[in-house]
Amino acid sequence: MATTKEFIQSLKYNSDGLIPAVVQDVHDKRVLMVAYMSPESLERTLATGQATYYSRSRQKLWLKGETSGHLQHVQRITFDCDRDTLILHVEQVGVACHEGYRSCFYREAEVSEGSVNEIVIGSKE
Amino acid sequence: MATTKEFIQSLKYNSDGLIPAVVQDVHDKRVLMVAYMSPESLERTLATGQATYYSRSRQKLWLKGETSGHLQHVQRITFDCDRDTLILHVEQVGVACHEGYRSCFYREAEVSEGSVNEIVIGSKE
Repeated sequence: MATTKEFIQSLKYNSDGLIPAVVQDVHDKRVLMVAYMSPESLERTLATGQATYYSRSRQKLWLKGETSGHLQHVQRITFDCDRDTLILHVEQVGVACHEGYRSCFYREAEVSEGSVNEIVIGSKE
Repeated sequence: MATTKEFIQSLKYNSDGLIPAVVQDVHDKRVLMVAYMSPESLERTLATGQATYYSRSRQKLWLKGETSGHLQHVQRITFDCDRDTLILHVEQVGVACHEGYRSCFYREAEVSEGSVNEIVIGSKE
């Protein structure tokens, strides 16, 4: 048993001080997105139960769904053997992707004979 | 339709020249691990159908399962809206984690009242 602060400090952050978080739908296990967390954003997430990331483009904390209402309620958190990657198992309100798709991973790369065809596999909801 | 080289060049790589790849079991959708790919390792993966990463610790190409036999046969590849993250949907031979667990994400952080309990949720096979 550790304090949340000790747990946060026990994780490994990359050269930018961030840890990647795979965000997975807790119901159908679809991977919705990958985002990055600072220690502070993880602390906020643990305290509130709402996924809060660190926006690399805006360089500040980013409560997912703050403007869109598409919050992510965190049900479980798992982490890997190296302690350098998290999975947030979430209940997604609305859609995860800012382009309107449920998952940011809405395109597939179909590979055949040295060429790649990009096909849209996700649907807008 | 693009050549595999054009597709590889169209992706966005981080400051280390790598792109993260979430590795997901194609059958039960469990996330097995997260690894990193260089353009060369992705090219190798597309050509062979066997997941090949770039080892950040050893700084060289890393055919997953080369020594353990625990290969990952890549069935599908999806990528996100920002083109900076991949999902490899794989058929995993044996286990993904070098510690003997099927998934590297074999521990959960149970959070309650300011403390975190780490519990093992994965099983060795």
